[in-house]
Amino acid sequence: MAHLLSTSCSIKLSSSHRPQSQPFRQCPTKCLTFFTLGASKYPFKRFVLQGRTQQAKCIVRAAVAPISQETPTQSSSGPQQNSSEPFKPKRVMVIGGDGYCGWATALHLSNKGYEVAIVDNLIRRHFDLQLGLDSLTPIASIHNRLRCWQSVTGKTIELYIGDICDFEFLSETFKSFEPDAVVHFGEQRSAPYSMIDRNRAVFTQHNNVIGTLNVLFAIKEFRDQCHLVKLGTMGEYGTPNIDIEEGYITITHNGRTDTLPFPKQASSFYHLSKVHDSNNIAFTCKAWGIRATDLNQGVVYGVRTDETEMHEELCNRLDYDAVFGTALNRFCVQAAVGHPLTVYGKGGQTRGYLDIRDTVQCVELAIANPAQPGEFRVFNQFTEQFSVNELASLVTKAGEKLGLDVKTISVPNPRVEAEEHYYNAKHTKLIELGLRPHLLSDSLLDSLLNFSIKFKDRVDTKQIMPSVSWKNIGVKPKTLAA
Amino acid sequence: MAHLLSTSCSIKLSSSHRPQSQPFRQCPTKCLTFFTLGASKYPFKRFVLQGRTQQAKCIVRAAVAPISQETPTQSSSGPQQNSSEPFKPKRVMVIGGDGYCGWATALHLSNKGYEVAIVDNLIRRHFDLQLGLDSLTPIASIHNRLRCWQSVTGKTIELYIGDICDFEFLSETFKSFEPDAVVHFGEQRSAPYSMIDRNRAVFTQHNNVIGTLNVLFAIKEFRDQCHLVKLGTMGEYGTPNIDIEEGYITITHNGRTDTLPFPKQASSFYHLSKVHDSNNIAFTCKAWGIRATDLNQGVVYGVRTDETEMHEELCNRLDYDAVFGTALNRFCVQAAVGHPLTVYGKGGQTRGYLDIRDTVQCVELAIANPAQPGEFRVFNQFTEQFSVNELASLVTKAGEKLGLDVKTISVPNPRVEAEEHYYNAKHTKLIELGLRPHLLSDSLLDSLLNFSIKFKDRVDTKQIMPSVSWKNIGVKPKTLAA
Repeated sequence: MAHLLSTSCSIKLSSSHRPQSQPFRQCPTKCLTFFTLGASKYPFKRFVLQGRTQQAKCIVRAAVAPISQETPTQSSSGPQQNSSEPFKPKRVMVIGGDGYCGWATALHLSNKGYEVAIVDNLIRRHFDLQLGLDSLTPIASIHNRLRCWQSVTGKTIELYIGDICDFEFLSETFKSFEPDAVVHFGEQRSAPYSMIDRNRAVFTQHNNVIGTLNVLFAIKEFRDQCHLVKLGTMGEYGTPNIDIEEGYITITHNGRTDTLPFPKQASSFYHLSKVHDSNNIAFTCKAWGIRATDLNQGVVYGVRTDETEMHEELCNRLDYDAVFGTALNRFCVQAAVGHPLTVYGKGGQTRGYLDIRDTVQCVELAIANPAQPGEFRVFNQFTEQFSVNELASLVTKAGEKLGLDVKTISVPNPRVEAEEHYYNAKHTKLIELGLRPHLLSDSLLDSLLNFSIKFKDRVDTKQIMPSVSWKNIGVKPKTLAA
Repeated sequence: MAHLLSTSCSIKLSSSHRPQSQPFRQCPTKCLTFFTLGASKYPFKRFVLQGRTQQAKCIVRAAVAPISQETPTQSSSGPQQNSSEPFKPKRVMVIGGDGYCGWATALHLSNKGYEVAIVDNLIRRHFDLQLGLDSLTPIASIHNRLRCWQSVTGKTIELYIGDICDFEFLSETFKSFEPDAVVHFGEQRSAPYSMIDRNRAVFTQHNNVIGTLNVLFAIKEFRDQCHLVKLGTMGEYGTPNIDIEEGYITITHNGRTDTLPFPKQASSFYHLSKVHDSNNIAFTCKAWGIRATDLNQGVVYGVRTDETEMHEELCNRLDYDAVFGTALNRFCVQAAVGHPLTVYGKGGQTRGYLDIRDTVQCVELAIANPAQPGEFRVFNQFTEQFSVNELASLVTKAGEKLGLDVKTISVPNPRVEAEEHYYNAKHTKLIELGLRPHLLSDSLLDSLLNFSIKFKDRVDTKQIMPSVSWKNIGVKPKTLAA
């Protein structure tokens, strides 16, 4: 964007300045990074100069360009589109774009020709630092990731570093980037994290609910035609003894009929925060005419997407620990290091699952086919159902083919959940929009297992067993020293 | 409680020290107030001495005793009751006990022989100061209220002033008072307030959700048999086209049946905060075995209860303004001052209503018949349904009997809501527990109108017309100067 050039402070780093300790090959072309701390249109720099709550408010605009292309491309954004015209989103803001799903999505959308900005406060990396965790895969800094993406593809992804709970920061990102769609991954997304202690429970609900409220207010104030694509979770529904519909259910009761929000029964402070968000968003669609899609996502597995494959510095994170690791990814890493697969309780817990390549596909479909003004649309975003025992069995078979000796143990369930239950969740709406699922296959399991074997020396086996208990959560802050 | 006597700092005020500017008669007996800033069991005084975030953390223990009875009665609290014995609550903490429903409830429970403590941060009074509003009725300070109550009845109500969003404060109240039941009115309770601007929307959701989370954690940590009686609202349900059940609905769908939480469709950030609370509480009942009753209350009218009648210094507040005033109370005040009754839109909005004398009765019934451990019980707390037009008609007729010329106008509806709709909400569970309703009668309306006439010189007619718009809420903080 043009005003990036009128900086009052810019730092140029050649690619050779990247820390040598990082285990990545150099980008194939030289590249420059501009950290832009001032802008002609909006006074970004005052946040830094005032120095108040600096961590939250520091905004870094990182526009990445190869040497041969030092002038960033002009903004394609004009005035907001007239709502009477067909809505053609071009500019997509990915909140939480440095995370597992967010990073894959940001790259995918950029690759598909959207103008993309990442908004992230990098707190997911901070959680790792605090809890002593790490991704199985080595991941580059967000700055190096974006420099590499530019270098490999010639495409620019803008970067805004800050906290969406800080409305002043969020306002500036909206006024500067002028998104047509916002993909909102910017939430604390781990159920166990939200059940560590009272502080984390409160943080999770505050962060997720207030952040989302701010996004809704920013859309209303600055981009009222902007389509909100919000990541929810299938966990919002719980495990009712009836079929789970996509967001709504038609109920006939005492001779009268209405279509109402599907009843929710979330089972962690994290899952509850997503229910709160869904309710808040639904209200603003009705009251303000916000257009929103709630993607109730299942458990995501896999690490590779077409875009993250392009360079090892683009590699996505893969969590295997008991706090952030999700079932299938965790099992593959356990198999690779010879740790028994940890089935919680009876293992009959059944959920919807999807390949991360389908996550990015689903988000793209939602953006390309936006909700109508005032519409609160809910899609169940998963492709297959499995019980935990079925996953363990699949990983065991795949591991044996690779010569691994895979065992399974049942560990006391740290959660409060049904371990044997009916589960049948609908998931046709994204298929109708064109989703072509990557179903879980032997080859994917092979690939994921081989990936885990490749990095098995990075595994900290102390992080595998569950350490957070739903019943024993207390009010004293938990620290590693405690 | 015995340890109140072992103070390190106490201030004794005779009743003659009360500000003379207050328009109340003197208490009939002399009384002493102890503001106790230290306690033998828990180190209250350190909050004051440390001086950190003093406003939130200052704890005032006000035990009020007449001169003839300077030794407060000994605490009836012993070790927490064994859960195998029948649960007989004696000690009730009323959070938000200085507010409209809270004050009437605290006095009623005290009068019925419960040991009562009020926990309140007095922010409801602060809202009035900030918005330039006032109760129709003059209300005494909470300190004078409690002094008067002691003076009139010989009964003591303990007072803890602080914010339940401050967990350190809340912990101390739990450890000190050791409640058997907590009645939780401590929330921002106005839908229009939550729709003034982004700040107030965020405040409402943060305050209500985090405050309630803290109460749940405090119960789990310090009093795990304590029964949470939480004030919800009928507004959580919205206006579905089917009968509204009490909290749960049995759904048969595709040949299978389950009883699930009744779908919610709240229509303001305030109402949404209550839905969030309900979901959080339900989860903790399941996960931790919390015993909770959610009282989904209708619109409360009236001002007098047996206890507030005992002395004018015990008088309850009565709100008539467009932010905090509720329909029937507001109409009576409008009729008294000759202002047309302000019906929003078509006036077909139908809701459940109840007399404040039934509010206190319902809460008492819920406390005396506690939920079981792990039970999340939902009662719809109202006695009759009326449309706004029906209420206007009732007030018009009652006003005419008193010689008032009552007119009604339709004003543009500031809310986003159905103005003509089906509404049939069940409310049998409290009746089954013994509720004997005070149905809306001519005599009550006469009384409320006469009350309004008595204080009509205190009415600020500028506060009557709606000033908050659901659709026009913005991100800039609204101030009176703006």
